Amino acid sequence: MTTPPDVSPLFTDLYQLSMMQGYFAEGKHTQQATFDLYYRRNPYRGGYAVWAGLEVALDYLDHLKFKPDQLAFLDSLQLFEPAFLKALETWRFTCRVTAFEEGAVVFANEPLLTVEGPLWEAQLVETALLNILNFQTLIATKAARCVSAAGPGSSVVEFGARRAQGPDGALGAARAAFVGGAVGTSNVEAAARYGLPLSGTHAHAWVESFGSELEAFRAYARLYPDSTTLLLDTFDTLESGLPNALTVARELRDAGHELRGVRLDSGDLAYLSARVRQALDNTGFGGVQIVASNDLSEFVIESVIREGGRIDVYGVGTQLATGGGEGGGALGGVYKLVALSGEGRMKLTGDPGKTSVPGPKRVWRARDAQGRLALDVVAAADEPPPQAGERVSDPLNPLRSSLLGHDLSWHDPRRVVHDAGRRTQPEAALSDLQRRAHSGLDELPEGTRRLLNPHLYRVSLSAELQRRREALIEHLRRP
Amino acid sequence: MTTPPDVSPLFTDLYQLSMMQGYFAEGKHTQQATFDLYYRRNPYRGGYAVWAGLEVALDYLDHLKFKPDQLAFLDSLQLFEPAFLKALETWRFTCRVTAFEEGAVVFANEPLLTVEGPLWEAQLVETALLNILNFQTLIATKAARCVSAAGPGSSVVEFGARRAQGPDGALGAARAAFVGGAVGTSNVEAAARYGLPLSGTHAHAWVESFGSELEAFRAYARLYPDSTTLLLDTFDTLESGLPNALTVARELRDAGHELRGVRLDSGDLAYLSARVRQALDNTGFGGVQIVASNDLSEFVIESVIREGGRIDVYGVGTQLATGGGEGGGALGGVYKLVALSGEGRMKLTGDPGKTSVPGPKRVWRARDAQGRLALDVVAAADEPPPQAGERVSDPLNPLRSSLLGHDLSWHDPRRVVHDAGRRTQPEAALSDLQRRAHSGLDELPEGTRRLLNPHLYRVSLSAELQRRREALIEHLRRP
Repeated sequence: MTTPPDVSPLFTDLYQLSMMQGYFAEGKHTQQATFDLYYRRNPYRGGYAVWAGLEVALDYLDHLKFKPDQLAFLDSLQLFEPAFLKALETWRFTCRVTAFEEGAVVFANEPLLTVEGPLWEAQLVETALLNILNFQTLIATKAARCVSAAGPGSSVVEFGARRAQGPDGALGAARAAFVGGAVGTSNVEAAARYGLPLSGTHAHAWVESFGSELEAFRAYARLYPDSTTLLLDTFDTLESGLPNALTVARELRDAGHELRGVRLDSGDLAYLSARVRQALDNTGFGGVQIVASNDLSEFVIESVIREGGRIDVYGVGTQLATGGGEGGGALGGVYKLVALSGEGRMKLTGDPGKTSVPGPKRVWRARDAQGRLALDVVAAADEPPPQAGERVSDPLNPLRSSLLGHDLSWHDPRRVVHDAGRRTQPEAALSDLQRRAHSGLDELPEGTRRLLNPHLYRVSLSAELQRRREALIEHLRRP
Repeated sequence: MTTPPDVSPLFTDLYQLSMMQGYFAEGKHTQQATFDLYYRRNPYRGGYAVWAGLEVALDYLDHLKFKPDQLAFLDSLQLFEPAFLKALETWRFTCRVTAFEEGAVVFANEPLLTVEGPLWEAQLVETALLNILNFQTLIATKAARCVSAAGPGSSVVEFGARRAQGPDGALGAARAAFVGGAVGTSNVEAAARYGLPLSGTHAHAWVESFGSELEAFRAYARLYPDSTTLLLDTFDTLESGLPNALTVARELRDAGHELRGVRLDSGDLAYLSARVRQALDNTGFGGVQIVASNDLSEFVIESVIREGGRIDVYGVGTQLATGGGEGGGALGGVYKLVALSGEGRMKLTGDPGKTSVPGPKRVWRARDAQGRLALDVVAAADEPPPQAGERVSDPLNPLRSSLLGHDLSWHDPRRVVHDAGRRTQPEAALSDLQRRAHSGLDELPEGTRRLLNPHLYRVSLSAELQRRREALIEHLRRP
């Protein structure tokens, strides 16, 4: 019902346009370039990421063209020549894009998305692709971590609209959280835009607006007899909220309805939820759900469960809408030129961890005999699939190498997703993306989903790619 | 040229609409309510915040009405009665909004914005007001901290589009960063939308796309002879980038132009910038600016300067676009019902720090004899201005109280900014908001701008407001 506004071709860093004009002036703009998009460290110091935002990015690429008012704005900057602006009138994005499908589980230092085509087309899209994919992947991963902490009996709902980074930040977060495993959102606009399930209770203001808490609870239950969740902590959770909720639960049952839930929003959630659960169970209200909110994160959820908390639904706000917390707030994805006119390209820079890997590549993913993911190998695009006994090495430290085992089955997990100006497949439903993420997470090896100090899934470089990288470094270092 | 999309009335948490229907069904929807918006802790553990986003929020309030397709969506949820949906057709926002002007310097635990009017109007806008004001204030404050760390001789530019939380997150961050003191942005769309100055250099891809770094530098200088900033670290900053940039600087000068700047993007920025500055100065290029980027924050900027770095322009990306870092990522602003039909309302909850302060209020701000800000007092709306000798207390701990001094001059820093459905003044220019923030920061007492462990500016409650709060707690606790 409300379509997201198109991301404009002006949504880019100025230097992309300055460089495009430069390529154009130098006659290099149609040289065939290859750019890899990847990140260098898993978000939240975790063991994986849930790759999200691809469908949003493809939508951006589908609609990419400069409109007259946008060209007039560029002209007003007095940086661009008429011939270049004229050429932008018919500029379109025709590159081939190869990527992991949205919802896939991915890792640091492997090319998640590759753009191949005319240099000036591939250059422009860097900023928007990174913006969309960094944020969506950050949030989907946070959701997967919260869902993983909550465990199979409980669910996670996104409650963060008021703390998100702008209205569209909130809408994007609701989408990504759903891909990563959240069952719904409190954000009505997000539900309208993306078809997400809605969830909501009432606020303290509702209780405060009545003469008494019991009166407020009764009024809410009268209005929503089959979907009432009562907030217990406006005055005192155990002394006031809980007994009043039990009164209303009995009155509802007498009238042929059932109280849906109660919500805890302050205090010691482990202790309070255990006490409330006991009181509900002891009075015949074992079916009433306990919802909890109040600055939750995957770590708070894990600790509440460890301490004996009994919570059915976690409403996660700030941290799920922004990816806040340790190492959070942003995923550091980058987009690097790795080949031009068939030749490998790279930068060295002053930080060894930022040295890129040159050349067009292919990702190979191995499953072991039990069907679990075993490792990913990044190889040159023209290499055959990995073979047992082949040596592969750590991209950050070539001295750490190992031999590939025998019981591995290999596949290429990436697909061509955009080509010749359009996406290669229709847009996937969000529920399918959520299912893909769910089954991908299930295939992870033991320990990889641990929240802190996880088992590190191996991403290796093929010996051939490592050799080509060293040869290019040698060549570039020659004076 | 590109106007921001209206924030829809559906951009709200589901429970706001459920409660609105409840107020409507109970005949309470037109009761006169007062809601206060405030936050409880300064962002980044700092000493202040720069209040930003008010103009965006007023724009939201100006355009607030339910359109037929939005009502149809609400109807499809099967939660809302026809009479309520019918009433929403003519629903408008008519409340009186009183607030600090955008750009003002503000503090924790004082009402930054107050909404007074019909309960169901004031309830709906909570989510969007918090979303807009939390994020804009978070980023403007981060910008002010970076500018403060950079010092008077240097400037800060927002470079974070690729790491921001969605396209609109990036655009909103560019706006707020400018209000907080950044001189510009790299984001072309943000410049088009908000009239911000643009800034940009070139990327590693430009250098990699040529046969050599010198060739790449020459081509860029040829194209932009009066605005070239060369990126030095594609291969080696001191061994390759710097000598090549000096060559191009000489060639440009011979042709009647001047190199504008060089950019450092990796390595030890303090050491490298000092070496590069020395080399530029020694060869007659004292006018060439040094731009630095690479995961900067206010703390990195402070340390680079302490270590002898010589940087003219700090391009701050991730942290400025997202407010990342210690205590960052989100400002925890809240919006609480404090009065209804003339009576004070409050919640107690299980966390003492979350107990609200009831009743309509007025903020009084004092300057000392030197014209510096001295303290803010939150008083009941019907009290006279504070008087010398009056006792005021800490809102979080009534036992900490003090007497008001004699040499203070008091003013009410808030204004009515929206009334009877429209803003009371035309929209302010962003450059005026930036100036307001700048002069507000200049008035802060010594130590309040310190990045870590700042002097804590005092926000106190009047004795009368404290008395009324205690009386209401007493009343609510009575069984």
